[in-house]
Amino acid sequence: MSAYQELSTPQLEIMLKELRTQFADFQKKGLKLDMSRGKPAADQLELSMPMFDVLNSSSYMKTEDGFDLRNYGVVDGAIDAKRLFGELMGVSADEIILVGPSSLTLMYDTIVRAMLHGVLGGSKPWGKYDKIKFLCPVPGYDRHFAICQNLGIEMIPVDMTDTGPDMDMVESLVSKDDTIKGIWCVPKYSNPQGITYSNETVRRFANLSPAAPDFRIFWDNAYCIHDLYDEHDQLLDLFSELKKNGKANMMFMFASTAKITFPGSGVAMMIATKENLDFVRKDLAVQTIGPDKINQVRHVRFLKDVNNIYDHMKKHAALLRPKFEAVLDTLDRNLGEAGIASWKKPNGGYFIALNTLEGCAKRVVSLCKEAGVVMTAAGATHPYGADPKDSTIRIAPTYPCIEELKLAAELFCLCVRLASVEKILQTR
Amino acid sequence: MSAYQELSTPQLEIMLKELRTQFADFQKKGLKLDMSRGKPAADQLELSMPMFDVLNSSSYMKTEDGFDLRNYGVVDGAIDAKRLFGELMGVSADEIILVGPSSLTLMYDTIVRAMLHGVLGGSKPWGKYDKIKFLCPVPGYDRHFAICQNLGIEMIPVDMTDTGPDMDMVESLVSKDDTIKGIWCVPKYSNPQGITYSNETVRRFANLSPAAPDFRIFWDNAYCIHDLYDEHDQLLDLFSELKKNGKANMMFMFASTAKITFPGSGVAMMIATKENLDFVRKDLAVQTIGPDKINQVRHVRFLKDVNNIYDHMKKHAALLRPKFEAVLDTLDRNLGEAGIASWKKPNGGYFIALNTLEGCAKRVVSLCKEAGVVMTAAGATHPYGADPKDSTIRIAPTYPCIEELKLAAELFCLCVRLASVEKILQTR
Repeated sequence: MSAYQELSTPQLEIMLKELRTQFADFQKKGLKLDMSRGKPAADQLELSMPMFDVLNSSSYMKTEDGFDLRNYGVVDGAIDAKRLFGELMGVSADEIILVGPSSLTLMYDTIVRAMLHGVLGGSKPWGKYDKIKFLCPVPGYDRHFAICQNLGIEMIPVDMTDTGPDMDMVESLVSKDDTIKGIWCVPKYSNPQGITYSNETVRRFANLSPAAPDFRIFWDNAYCIHDLYDEHDQLLDLFSELKKNGKANMMFMFASTAKITFPGSGVAMMIATKENLDFVRKDLAVQTIGPDKINQVRHVRFLKDVNNIYDHMKKHAALLRPKFEAVLDTLDRNLGEAGIASWKKPNGGYFIALNTLEGCAKRVVSLCKEAGVVMTAAGATHPYGADPKDSTIRIAPTYPCIEELKLAAELFCLCVRLASVEKILQTR
Repeated sequence: MSAYQELSTPQLEIMLKELRTQFADFQKKGLKLDMSRGKPAADQLELSMPMFDVLNSSSYMKTEDGFDLRNYGVVDGAIDAKRLFGELMGVSADEIILVGPSSLTLMYDTIVRAMLHGVLGGSKPWGKYDKIKFLCPVPGYDRHFAICQNLGIEMIPVDMTDTGPDMDMVESLVSKDDTIKGIWCVPKYSNPQGITYSNETVRRFANLSPAAPDFRIFWDNAYCIHDLYDEHDQLLDLFSELKKNGKANMMFMFASTAKITFPGSGVAMMIATKENLDFVRKDLAVQTIGPDKINQVRHVRFLKDVNNIYDHMKKHAALLRPKFEAVLDTLDRNLGEAGIASWKKPNGGYFIALNTLEGCAKRVVSLCKEAGVVMTAAGATHPYGADPKDSTIRIAPTYPCIEELKLAAELFCLCVRLASVEKILQTR
C-alpha cells in the first residue's frame, strides 16, 4: 500500500474535494441498495420454481421405506433425503440427520443441547462450566459469533491465513485449555474472504489433540458445492481424514440447501458419526415428533440425483459469476493502484472481503449508507462486532441486479477512497 | 364399580378360562394395529391434499407486505399467516409468532430459552436455580412430561377434575413456592381425558397470583377447534380474562395446524403479549433467519379464511366421530356393567382415557401387545411414566380404519376384563 500515501498534502486535499463532489452526486441518485447479506437474487430463486410442480394433490406421498410423508414420525429425516444428501456429502445415511429448514438453527440447537446436556464423551454439560470458549477464525461469519454471544461462550479470535486458520495457534490453544469446546469453520469459500482451507490445514484439523474430550470442530460447509467456476477449489474431506486418525467424533458438519433451492424453506443437514448422532437423537426425540418430511421429499424429487444437483449449481454460478466479476473489476479499476485496500478473488461462496487502511472500515460503511447503499456493519466479521483494526468490510454482491450492483460498487470504491484520503490527511 | 367383584371365586375362575380362550383366538388373528398415538388417519390427510395445488411454478411468491417467500427474512412468521391464525385464535397479528412446523418444538424451545435466558420479568434464567418445578395436571400429555424430564424440571402432579385441574391445589402451590415456574395445560379436550376446563377454572387461572414473577401458564391449545360435534365444548378465552386482570404476561399459548392439515409439515403458533414475544424474539433472531414462509403462505392460500377452516374441521369431525363412537360403544357393551373400568365421552380432541381397577393398566397394555395391538404405554399419562395407581390407559382411536378399530376395541375390552378378573382373584 503506497500510492495515495505518497501524494503530497495539497494533492490529497484537491483529491478529497473532488471525491466529495462525486459523493454528493451519488447522494442525489437516491440509491436504495443492499449489499449486506448473502442472499440469492430473485433470478436464482426462479431456478427452483419447478420444485413447486413436483408434488400435487395426486402425488405419491410416502418415503422409500413406506412412511407417510404427511403424518407424524421419523424424527431425524426422511430416508430418501438422507440418501441423496448423504451421497452429496460423501457420507452414509446413518451419518446424516436432516432437521429443519436452516443449518443456522441446527447449529444453534446443537450448541444449546451441548450447553444443557453436553456432547458424547464429555464429563458434564457445557453450561455447567464457569466459562467455556470457542475459537473464532477472523474475519468470520457474524451469525456464528452471535450464537456464542447469545449463549455466553467466550470467543477467542484466531487469525485467518491464505490457507485457513492459523493452525499453530489453533493447535497450541486447544491442546492446553480444556474449556475450549469448539471452533467455527467455514472451510470452503470462507465467509467473508472466500478462502478454501488447504489440504495441510484440513489434515492438521484431523490431527488435533484437544485437552477437552468434548471438543468439537463446527465445520459449517455452507458453500460445499457453491463454485463460481468449473475449475473450482477442492476441499479435502475432513470426516475421512478424521476417520483415518480414529478421531471422527471430533467433528459436527453442517450444510443446507438454502442456496441451492430456497433460503428458509430448504433442508438442513448435520453430518457426524453415528455415535455422535445417537447422542443428539436422545434430545431430538423430545424436542420434535419429526421434521417436515414433505419438503424433504419435495427436494429429493426435484433435485433427483447428485449430478443433477451439480448441474443446478452451474445455473446459480452462471448468474453469480458476472456479479462477482463486476465487483472485482470495479475494485481493480478504482482501487487497484491506490494502495489503500486489499482483497482476494474468491472462486465461490457468497462474499468478497476487503481490507481498508486501519481505522477506515466504519467510515466507509457509514458513507455508503449516507448514499443509500447498505453494507454489512463494519466489525460484524469479528467477535463482539469489534474489529481491532477497523479495516475489514464484507461485500455481498449476490442480491442486487447487475446494473445496480455496478453502481453500488462504484459508490463503495468512492467511499473507500474518500475515507482513506480523510484518514491519511488526519494522520499527517 | 362392583359387578365382577360380586362374583364368587369359582364363577370368576370359569370366566377367566373363557376369557383366556377368547384371548388365544384373538392372538391367532395376527393383528398389527396401533392405538398408541394421536395421529390422524390417511383419510384425514387426504382432506388437505388440494393444498399441494395452491402453489405452483407460476404462483405469486410474496407476502402481503412484499417479502419474497422464497428468500431469507421475517424471523417470526409471514404476515399473511399471522393475520389468518391470529384471527382464528382471537388475537392481533402482534400477539402471535409462527415458528416451525410443530408446536411441540416451539414449547420445548420456549422452555429451553427460559432455562438459558429466563423470561420477561424474571430475575435470572430458570437454569440458574438449583431446582425449578412445573405443575402437571394428571393424567396428562406424555410429551409435556418428557420435556420437563429432559430439562431437569421437577414435576408436581395435580389431580384433574371434571372441570380441569384441581384449582385449590394449583392456587395453593403457586402462591407459596417461587421455584414453581410453570404449569402444563391442555385446556380444551384435554389429553387424554377430553375434558374442557370450565369457565370458573379459566377465571381462576386468570386470577393466579404466583410467588414467582416469571411463572407462566403453558396453555397448549392443541385441540382448540378440534370438535367432534356441532354442539361442542366452549373454552373461555384465558388471554382475554388475563388482560382484564392485568396479568396477560402470565400466559404462553400454543397451537398448530398439525391436525388441521399435516402433522410435522404444518404451522406452529405461539400466542402471548407483544412484550413477552419481544423478549423471545431477541433469542429467535440468533437462532433463525426465519421460518418456512412458503409453507405458511401455502397454508393461508389453502385455508383461505376462518370460516373455511371451521368447514374443513367439520370434514375431520365427520371422519373421526364414527371412530370415537365405535370405541365408546364397544366400551359400553363390554364394560358398561362390569364395574371394572370408567371413562368419559369426549366431545373432541384425539383421545379417550380409561381407568381400570388399581394395578391393572400395565397388564392390560401388555396383553394388548401380545395380541398385536399397541396402546400408549401405561404410566405415560403421568410424570416420570409412573401412574401410582397403575390404572390410567390412553386410547387413541383416530389412526386405524374403522373395521380394525372395532376389532382392536373388542380386544382391548377383553384384555381389561382378563386383567381385572386376574387382579380380583389375586387379591382374594
